[in-house]
Amino acid sequence: MKTIAVIHGPNLNFTGVREKAVYGNQSLQDIDDSIRAYAITLGCKVVIFQSNSEGELIDYIQNCFIDEIDGIIINPGAYAHYSYAIRDALAGITTPCIEVHLSNIYKRESFRHTSVISPVCMGQITGLGLNSYLLALSALNAD
Amino acid sequence: MKTIAVIHGPNLNFTGVREKAVYGNQSLQDIDDSIRAYAITLGCKVVIFQSNSEGELIDYIQNCFIDEIDGIIINPGAYAHYSYAIRDALAGITTPCIEVHLSNIYKRESFRHTSVISPVCMGQITGLGLNSYLLALSALNAD
Amino acid sequence: MKTIAVIHGPNLNFTGVREKAVYGNQSLQDIDDSIRAYAITLGCKVVIFQSNSEGELIDYIQNCFIDEIDGIIINPGAYAHYSYAIRDALAGITTPCIEVHLSNIYKRESFRHTSVISPVCMGQITGLGLNSYLLALSALNAD
Amino acid sequence: MKTIAVIHGPNLNFTGVREKAVYGNQSLQDIDDSIRAYAITLGCKVVIFQSNSEGELIDYIQNCFIDEIDGIIINPGAYAHYSYAIRDALAGITTPCIEVHLSNIYKRESFRHTSVISPVCMGQITGLGLNSYLLALSALNAD
Amino acid sequence: MKTIAVIHGPNLNFTGVREKAVYGNQSLQDIDDSIRAYAITLGCKVVIFQSNSEGELIDYIQNCFIDEIDGIIINPGAYAHYSYAIRDALAGITTPCIEVHLSNIYKRESFRHTSVISPVCMGQITGLGLNSYLLALSALNAD
Amino acid sequence: MKTIAVIHGPNLNFTGVREKAVYGNQSLQDIDDSIRAYAITLGCKVVIFQSNSEGELIDYIQNCFIDEIDGIIINPGAYAHYSYAIRDALAGITTPCIEVHLSNIYKRESFRHTSVISPVCMGQITGLGLNSYLLALSALNAD
Amino acid sequence: MKTIAVIHGPNLNFTGVREKAVYGNQSLQDIDDSIRAYAITLGCKVVIFQSNSEGELIDYIQNCFIDEIDGIIINPGAYAHYSYAIRDALAGITTPCIEVHLSNIYKRESFRHTSVISPVCMGQITGLGLNSYLLALSALNAD
Amino acid sequence: MKTIAVIHGPNLNFTGVREKAVYGNQSLQDIDDSIRAYAITLGCKVVIFQSNSEGELIDYIQNCFIDEIDGIIINPGAYAHYSYAIRDALAGITTPCIEVHLSNIYKRESFRHTSVISPVCMGQITGLGLNSYLLALSALNAD
Amino acid sequence: MKTIAVIHGPNLNFTGVREKAVYGNQSLQDIDDSIRAYAITLGCKVVIFQSNSEGELIDYIQNCFIDEIDGIIINPGAYAHYSYAIRDALAGITTPCIEVHLSNIYKRESFRHTSVISPVCMGQITGLGLNSYLLALSALNAD
Amino acid sequence: MKTIAVIHGPNLNFTGVREKAVYGNQSLQDIDDSIRAYAITLGCKVVIFQSNSEGELIDYIQNCFIDEIDGIIINPGAYAHYSYAIRDALAGITTPCIEVHLSNIYKRESFRHTSVISPVCMGQITGLGLNSYLLALSALNAD
Amino acid sequence: MKTIAVIHGPNLNFTGVREKAVYGNQSLQDIDDSIRAYAITLGCKVVIFQSNSEGELIDYIQNCFIDEIDGIIINPGAYAHYSYAIRDALAGITTPCIEVHLSNIYKRESFRHTSVISPVCMGQITGLGLNSYLLALSALNAD
Amino acid sequence: MKTIAVIHGPNLNFTGVREKAVYGNQSLQDIDDSIRAYAITLGCKVVIFQSNSEGELIDYIQNCFIDEIDGIIINPGAYAHYSYAIRDALAGITTPCIEVHLSNIYKRESFRHTSVISPVCMGQITGLGLNSYLLALSALNAD
Repeated sequence: MKTIAVIHGPNLNFTGVREKAVYGNQSLQDIDDSIRAYAITLGCKVVIFQSNSEGELIDYIQNCFIDEIDGIIINPGAYAHYSYAIRDALAGITTPCIEVHLSNIYKRESFRHTSVISPVCMGQITGLGLNSYLLALSALNAD
Repeated sequence: MKTIAVIHGPNLNFTGVREKAVYGNQSLQDIDDSIRAYAITLGCKVVIFQSNSEGELIDYIQNCFIDEIDGIIINPGAYAHYSYAIRDALAGITTPCIEVHLSNIYKRESFRHTSVISPVCMGQITGLGLNSYLLALSALNAD
Repeated sequence: MKTIAVIHGPNLNFTGVREKAVYGNQSLQDIDDSIRAYAITLGCKVVIFQSNSEGELIDYIQNCFIDEIDGIIINPGAYAHYSYAIRDALAGITTPCIEVHLSNIYKRESFRHTSVISPVCMGQITGLGLNSYLLALSALNAD
Repeated sequence: MKTIAVIHGPNLNFTGVREKAVYGNQSLQDIDDSIRAYAITLGCKVVIFQSNSEGELIDYIQNCFIDEIDGIIINPGAYAHYSYAIRDALAGITTPCIEVHLSNIYKRESFRHTSVISPVCMGQITGLGLNSYLLALSALNAD
Repeated sequence: MKTIAVIHGPNLNFTGVREKAVYGNQSLQDIDDSIRAYAITLGCKVVIFQSNSEGELIDYIQNCFIDEIDGIIINPGAYAHYSYAIRDALAGITTPCIEVHLSNIYKRESFRHTSVISPVCMGQITGLGLNSYLLALSALNAD
Repeated sequence: MKTIAVIHGPNLNFTGVREKAVYGNQSLQDIDDSIRAYAITLGCKVVIFQSNSEGELIDYIQNCFIDEIDGIIINPGAYAHYSYAIRDALAGITTPCIEVHLSNIYKRESFRHTSVISPVCMGQITGLGLNSYLLALSALNAD
Repeated sequence: MKTIAVIHGPNLNFTGVREKAVYGNQSLQDIDDSIRAYAITLGCKVVIFQSNSEGELIDYIQNCFIDEIDGIIINPGAYAHYSYAIRDALAGITTPCIEVHLSNIYKRESFRHTSVISPVCMGQITGLGLNSYLLALSALNAD
Repeated sequence: MKTIAVIHGPNLNFTGVREKAVYGNQSLQDIDDSIRAYAITLGCKVVIFQSNSEGELIDYIQNCFIDEIDGIIINPGAYAHYSYAIRDALAGITTPCIEVHLSNIYKRESFRHTSVISPVCMGQITGLGLNSYLLALSALNAD
Repeated sequence: MKTIAVIHGPNLNFTGVREKAVYGNQSLQDIDDSIRAYAITLGCKVVIFQSNSEGELIDYIQNCFIDEIDGIIINPGAYAHYSYAIRDALAGITTPCIEVHLSNIYKRESFRHTSVISPVCMGQITGLGLNSYLLALSALNAD
Repeated sequence: MKTIAVIHGPNLNFTGVREKAVYGNQSLQDIDDSIRAYAITLGCKVVIFQSNSEGELIDYIQNCFIDEIDGIIINPGAYAHYSYAIRDALAGITTPCIEVHLSNIYKRESFRHTSVISPVCMGQITGLGLNSYLLALSALNAD
Repeated sequence: MKTIAVIHGPNLNFTGVREKAVYGNQSLQDIDDSIRAYAITLGCKVVIFQSNSEGELIDYIQNCFIDEIDGIIINPGAYAHYSYAIRDALAGITTPCIEVHLSNIYKRESFRHTSVISPVCMGQITGLGLNSYLLALSALNAD
Repeated sequence: MKTIAVIHGPNLNFTGVREKAVYGNQSLQDIDDSIRAYAITLGCKVVIFQSNSEGELIDYIQNCFIDEIDGIIINPGAYAHYSYAIRDALAGITTPCIEVHLSNIYKRESFRHTSVISPVCMGQITGLGLNSYLLALSALNAD
């Protein structure tokens, strides 16, 4: 049985609070519950982490590698657009990783059109809301 | 029962022939067979189209709308990077659409890092090979 | 009596369907009827062509020259923004040409602010809806 | 009966003097006479103003609004390319406005390819010489 | 007792008329009345000037220096974004100056994100409506 | 009685130590004392926080919203120029916020000329030293 | 005996008609006759194709590979400057290819200075008129 | 005997007041006196004009042409960097013109490194203080 | 006897794990041991710190100043390319600092070619592996 | 009988030594021998020159003109990308010139994609190794 | 009596040969004769040097300083646009220097619009042909 | 015993003369003496070369390879910023090379922030004055 880490970046703890027009009404708790429920149907285990701190996100990514986690789903939030340090953390491990975004970042402000994380991930899923996470989970589990 | 259109853009008919290091060994026939098999398991119908011609791709997208297709999965190939005409075709219809790419376009040449199609799609799935199509099918069927 | 060709580019066959907030409710058929009616009042002949295909548009432009058409009104749609091949077709003939757009392209997305076609046309009329065509017809007939 | 204001920007008083290869031999007086004659055939009234001063052009635009003029035809000359103050004046009123240019600005030096005025006008007519004004008059009168 | 000059740039005389969604309903007269009332509470004198003309604004700035005015509050309007001549006028005097804007210029069109005036002012206050002026008055009076 | 949060970003704890030519001799303690004293005169309450950590600043901003603080004054320091994560934190709450800077950032290195925070704040006050904070406090209290 | 395909892109069928100052008086028929005559002297076979359609050019390139053609000479015309789809077609086959242009594209408009095709060809010959084709033929035959 | 016009642009009336480190202590009156004295030694006549207004500068340039002035020396001040309207005024007349600057504009802020006026002048003399004017006078008189 | 601080930025704790092709096989422990051994031969003291957190790195830099450390060697890792906050921390102290990188950052991805830290350091040593640190130690000790 | 000059720029004397993966194993001596042998078959004369010095290359180009050489083949090496002085030397003579490169410069580092020499040459041949020279020789001899 | 050095850069020895439309018919010998004759009338001495070699030009500039030459007139030719080494040579000496150009470099290709030399010279004179040199001589002699 | 070549580029022969604020008072002779003295302590041999000529520097680099020199220390001076020819010379040899600069080039004019040489060197040492050379010598000797 695989263990997949789900990493939520900055401000995702305010999902459902923040900018509902963009992100919808679901709280992060709702999202996490759905991810956990879906993991059960897939027969895999998930561990979930959220932080607003770039350093803690890097620490956690490094620990995923040390703990031999089988795959990482990361929603880097706004760090996607400038955190070369998170990029280096992901580039420095062999754990397969999929980047996800709730909203379609290519429809929004131009600074959101570039992810510095995506070149070091296996792939990217954007714009499908909660489904972005669930599809990534399915893909990593089947990998 | 939903009907989903799968649209393959230019050079995808050479998949499995072209640049195996990037795209793998599967032929387009293999991919289409897998999509059809997965559609059966999901309980939806798929129609599949490939063309190297920008004009034919636009004609086909318009016909999806006229024929009341329930969703579109488009791999626009290289047209992703400059075809504002395909973008306008997708923007001009209300059919939900997901853009997919076999490879992680953000790992490749810089001209591939921008899709002019993505701002008018619901979302984008890249880098997961055949899975990019299958996950999109699952998402559109569940939509 | 002059003969003027009216050339509609990609997605204009969806006018009245597509993005009504931008283009209004008139169908292309309505527009063509108005153009034909106005041509009668001006005492000139019009031939009208629409295609979503860049290659067919170039073929048609070349035939306008061979058939000694007296003037061309072209709404290049999204090809305005990148089709150097259509530009070359227009540059390669001596038939006078006016570029038209239904909407004011300078009010919209930044990629629409540049037309690669306009430097090889006599002039450009944008933002006046059906009137963009009618004024161009009047200008070419009087030329 | 509508009243339309025709506003000529900087250096247009030298038309017919300045750069004949670009603008032709007609003097501004000739152009104004033709506009007035055409207005009579359309059954509308025109008021015409020329100034080399950005401030006076803004004052005049504001007065058009106060005087409830029905439409504005503006040839902003070189101010088209940098006068955000004229842009704001036009954006600040509800009078419909068409921007015109005698020459095809898209054929000339690159600084002339961008008009900061055009996004706040209804439309733009360029490259048709005197006809640029006459067609705009016809369009505003019919509006 | 200090004397502070308040300089309103182009189109500010249309405040309350122009683009209410952006600037609110207050007329320039209302704003000036509030500034004068607040000056009395602060125990300073204000002189107020508005012009749409870049040259007149420069003349007025130079006269502030000649007349030994104690401070300048300037809302340069759209000239903020390109008038290097106004910048030079302010750079050429020792009178302390604060640049103000009614709206938050950093929320609007990208051309408004750069002020060529701000590097030669003591500071800048934006986005606080009438308060932008009143706070600047308070700061200059206390300086 | 309103409660206003004052948030000092990275290196502001070294004010009065760091680069005196730019920031002056006042220590952060002096600044905070002046803010508290001024709050008393205004009849409002202030809470003050400083951190060098982007994540802690985001946590604190989120808590201001949870705690129903009435307004935020933020001096984001160098994070102003690249922290899209702080921007998202501010965009995700409805608490009114004013961005302040001690120095005139438009007079300094070019990287300081752009604040990615300012588009999501109500306004910005720069270059007025301690006064930047006091004026913001006055504005938020009066809001 | 080798077989070499010569592919003429858009508007080359108008050579000798279009812009004689740039391309000279030779018709495409003249060029093709010279190529065929030269092939005989080299002892190789040529097949020649022209199309204005990007899609047809891609189809033809793919067929060259399927038909085991020994080399391709392509004059992509204006598609050289933006057709990433033709680039992908050439990148996807192992047939050696030389890009040719009749005129020196580096002497002309700046958009012609970049060929997106050239990085996937063996080499490029420009500016030598008919000779560009003949030299390419000689090089591919000797390869 | 030739008549040469000397045109001083914005803020030059503050020379000797403004930024002495850059421009020196001479007042504009001193400069004009030196120009007049030197004109006598050269045996030519000078007329001198200063304005802060772009429109007045254009009016004056046009009048130089109408009055058959033999040459123009223009120090456009900051208008050098953006006034395409002054550029058009100079391009529209046949009077030979030399652009001068007191300071070496290439040593200063980057916005001063480009003059939009210089491409339509015969030549440019910068950085030589009063001498910039005197040398231009000598050159135009000898022309 | 001098005390030199060695500061390792994000992901350097994974040296010898991460991307061996770029950084070699030495672990951070190996590097630190070598630095300590070399310090003994030089007759100076070293203190060593590593963190993935930007805020902790800033705190540590500030403490070096408070603790009157004699010199700082910083390998800012990926923060080199965007952390203006770390730059400000270094600019705000008088402790001499040398920036080091294990790899030659100018040979790698383009985002690594610019260090925002280097303008506020005494110098930079890159590409010499462990030697980058040792040479910096030697230089600071001799300073 | 024509005389053609072959000019080799910097580092070409190290061909066969330098970067064999890019340039192959042939030494410059081998290349020159092949050129001379081919010249005999064409019935023309060649003179060959190599220098690492920009100045000497310019001197040699000027002497080709003085000596009435019939054509120049120049491989400018890296000077192709920045030597406007060599460009001016070639622009200043009427001798026909073809620019050649051994490798396909459009496949390599981006700085090699622009040749400042090519706009003043008759044409360019790149990527064909020794054949680049031989084809140029054939073209110039036949010219 | 002052001694002034006149330094001619690359290709100036071909003046009168090269591009007569741009530079006129005068040979460099004619120019030098005129400079020498004018020096006699001014009562100063000139030494004149020409080289196509960047290194020799630098050597010569350094020797001007060693020989205590009173002023330098340099026409750097195309080196003006990229030779930071010549710039450094001029920046490294205290000899006053004026940059001259025969033609108006601001009317020509865009790469000629920037001189990297001008920021380290006292001033620049362009577009006045031989007069550019003579005026510079007059200015340096009077300095 | 290793032999290391030290190569000084343009204007370094003026060190101690030129711009003392930037480079200090040491003459090149002083620097060379220190390098030679330090080489003795290291037990290696140094050969030292200076030239202002790009071509001579390339010749010398090539000879280092031919002479089987063990390492190169190059201070390319201003050629660092544009000499792709020197870059190619270094790329074409296998001799290890370290680039050094006396001053911290990242603190100076923006054109000095990019070295086109550094991507082909082993590493770079900047800003440490004479120490830049000595540390490079130590590193190459130990290599």
